[in-house]
Amino acid sequence: MEDLSTASAAEIASAVSTKSVSARSVVASTLERIARIDGRVNSFTDVLSDRALARADAVDAARQRGQAIGPLAGVPFAVKNLFDVAGLPTRAGAKINRDRVPAERDATLIARLEAAGAILVGALNMGEFAYDFTGENIHDGPTRNPHDLEHMSGGSSGGSGGAVAAGLVPLTLGSDTNGSIRVPSAFCGCFGLKPTYGRLSRAGSFPFVGSLDHLGPIARSVTDLALAYDAMQGPDPADPVETDRGIEAVRPTLDAGIGDLRVGVAGGYFARGGDAEAFAAVQHLGHALGCDRTVDIPEAARARAAAYLITAAEGATLHLDRLRSRAEDFDPAVRDRLIAGAMIPAPYLERAQRFRRHYRTAVLDLFRDVDVILAPSTPCRAPRLGQKTFVLDGVELPVRANIGVFTQPISFIGLPVAAVPVWLDDGLPLGVQIIGAPWREDVVLRIARYLEKEGHVRAPVAAFA
Amino acid sequence: MEDLSTASAAEIASAVSTKSVSARSVVASTLERIARIDGRVNSFTDVLSDRALARADAVDAARQRGQAIGPLAGVPFAVKNLFDVAGLPTRAGAKINRDRVPAERDATLIARLEAAGAILVGALNMGEFAYDFTGENIHDGPTRNPHDLEHMSGGSSGGSGGAVAAGLVPLTLGSDTNGSIRVPSAFCGCFGLKPTYGRLSRAGSFPFVGSLDHLGPIARSVTDLALAYDAMQGPDPADPVETDRGIEAVRPTLDAGIGDLRVGVAGGYFARGGDAEAFAAVQHLGHALGCDRTVDIPEAARARAAAYLITAAEGATLHLDRLRSRAEDFDPAVRDRLIAGAMIPAPYLERAQRFRRHYRTAVLDLFRDVDVILAPSTPCRAPRLGQKTFVLDGVELPVRANIGVFTQPISFIGLPVAAVPVWLDDGLPLGVQIIGAPWREDVVLRIARYLEKEGHVRAPVAAFA
Repeated sequence: MEDLSTASAAEIASAVSTKSVSARSVVASTLERIARIDGRVNSFTDVLSDRALARADAVDAARQRGQAIGPLAGVPFAVKNLFDVAGLPTRAGAKINRDRVPAERDATLIARLEAAGAILVGALNMGEFAYDFTGENIHDGPTRNPHDLEHMSGGSSGGSGGAVAAGLVPLTLGSDTNGSIRVPSAFCGCFGLKPTYGRLSRAGSFPFVGSLDHLGPIARSVTDLALAYDAMQGPDPADPVETDRGIEAVRPTLDAGIGDLRVGVAGGYFARGGDAEAFAAVQHLGHALGCDRTVDIPEAARARAAAYLITAAEGATLHLDRLRSRAEDFDPAVRDRLIAGAMIPAPYLERAQRFRRHYRTAVLDLFRDVDVILAPSTPCRAPRLGQKTFVLDGVELPVRANIGVFTQPISFIGLPVAAVPVWLDDGLPLGVQIIGAPWREDVVLRIARYLEKEGHVRAPVAAFA
Repeated sequence: MEDLSTASAAEIASAVSTKSVSARSVVASTLERIARIDGRVNSFTDVLSDRALARADAVDAARQRGQAIGPLAGVPFAVKNLFDVAGLPTRAGAKINRDRVPAERDATLIARLEAAGAILVGALNMGEFAYDFTGENIHDGPTRNPHDLEHMSGGSSGGSGGAVAAGLVPLTLGSDTNGSIRVPSAFCGCFGLKPTYGRLSRAGSFPFVGSLDHLGPIARSVTDLALAYDAMQGPDPADPVETDRGIEAVRPTLDAGIGDLRVGVAGGYFARGGDAEAFAAVQHLGHALGCDRTVDIPEAARARAAAYLITAAEGATLHLDRLRSRAEDFDPAVRDRLIAGAMIPAPYLERAQRFRRHYRTAVLDLFRDVDVILAPSTPCRAPRLGQKTFVLDGVELPVRANIGVFTQPISFIGLPVAAVPVWLDDGLPLGVQIIGAPWREDVVLRIARYLEKEGHVRAPVAAFA
């Protein structure tokens, strides 16, 4: 293994398991690369050198004793800083949260990845309280796009996208309420998985909107997403919304090809209001999958509006006491939306929730005719850092509010999505959502893997001078 | 059977079944009495003479053929006018609703009572859209208290209490969101049952607050409550919040006595803020049950506040379009509260719902130590019609807003309640709530039946000049 920065999690685990490299040397060179490069990207807020090296030694010692060391043995990973990490205050990107008492134990998903042999090396930058699509953080500075440092990483899991694209770690965890895994995956050119709502335990993570929050992995290969997902899935009594889904491993069928899976391209709302390249990326993958079917997701604009409203109101509910006592310590861009959310009349929220049930039923009906639906992840490539507006379909719009136009209507009803990166030219990448029916992570990942094998999607490590 | 006006449902059904009277003669004399007396009480908004007589003939014909005619054979009953009755617009006490298309079929509970042989004779007056504790209706006039026509019947099921107390029918159905069965049962001196939330199907009824609405019977005997309840219970796929409870008949154990059932009297919040007689009525029943235990229902004041808030906000959600298009056609006392409800900020509602879960857990804990809890139904006897304020504990308060102080914290978490009438003197009656754990209608009715047998509670027909 010459270059750890381009090695996949699967390759690292294989090399560690076969003793061609030690976990300690993997972690040591990871820490070295973070120290050398992350000053430019700004994806890490906490690097856990001592913990990671100790853990690496433990993996190596176990290997030495001939013990099983897990499918992710020695794989360095990092997590968005809204995950609890024992001994750290859980920041969730907020200045206010720096005063929290340190977490007593790791989040469930961290514990599960480490049980599979992976090694946590740090916590990652994010938009404040996850109310963000840009990856800009007023307290910690923006995470820069590794493929062009003057551009946004996307958010709110900006550090999770940036660290993977910069080749600092092969695997990160993020959260996605309205698009916060899929947007940085698109802007940074990574693979992301937003699982079905309720599928991965949220125990030990700082919430944003209880009925919309998802956790999931970002990686540079579909296989790595599948390995991580399989290591993390399964019921957790500590999860606030526990489901009784058992473990349905996706890795075994990942390379089964697309067989007779039926693919549709989302039309209507999802085929306008964005740059031509965004739709070209979707069309490209549609062709690659032999798809000639357009699917109309009904009332997607209302779904987005309802997701917006629920997010603002429930986010405000969560932060009401902090808004009252420490308003000046918020990022103003976050605070002002939360204050507005605190004043949304209750009947509006009730109606949005009612519409949500209706919309869910209508969209689930579509999956009688198709197995997956393709749609853009974002309406454009990564904007420049600090950019406040962009022009979509000839209309100038605020950037922050509109990056999520294509992700919000999907997470609104908790559908699983594999977010895949498409490189149409020498410019920045574009992202495409492969959207499946609830609990069909296996299907969306199989499609993603097929496209990866055929060379249509890829997640290269950014080149640094 | 000399006087049908004082006959119980059980007595009528027995007389019809044994052919000592025909269903037709029961219905005919019921219609005659309604025509003669209800001008003074104003409990009916619709009398269904033709339908009722036809139905009576069908019962008599079935009896003639030797067919089973049901445990409520020939029993006349009437329903609050928020129940769908085939061929009538479902008024829900509102002028606006008079323009609705007539209902195509009867509500589930009507169909079930009629399947048990009962005969619907009419629809009953109620407070507009059930947002009421007085029984006053600005469009249809108030339902007057049969025991003193210058006093309130209580609401919002005022017609349901008034018709029973006036001896017009032995059985009515009402709805109870915050107390609307228990309050008229108290003011009119009847027995009422507010079952566990979700226990009786709401299919075919006009809603008020989805998460608080209950339907249930009012009668002049506990046995009649039990007969009606048993005829109505059981799952209904058409119910908006269907439960999977099967049928758990309460009639078989109704006369089993109180055995070792443990009784507590609610203290704290439930022992102040009302007239001395209200608490004396509770103490009287506590003594009769050999109870020496006081139970503190924690945070009842917050529970009432939260129920208020949820009612206003969810009621406003339901009526938002009507408020926009036909504000002038509402009762102003209802409209103004709904408009205020439409402006409640969503986070307040979210927090009220969150508190509700916490409070429910705390109150359910109490049922480890007691089987039922006694509390007043209302803080005072029936106020005079039109009375706007009353003095409770030395504080002058608006009547409308404060009649439900003791009922709201109980329905808030859906507990079953048998409301029983206590006559301490020659004045108007007082009501006591016998509150049970979820799904224990059998227990609250057994206690009520014991008190009735022992002569501590009773529901006499009002005397008319």
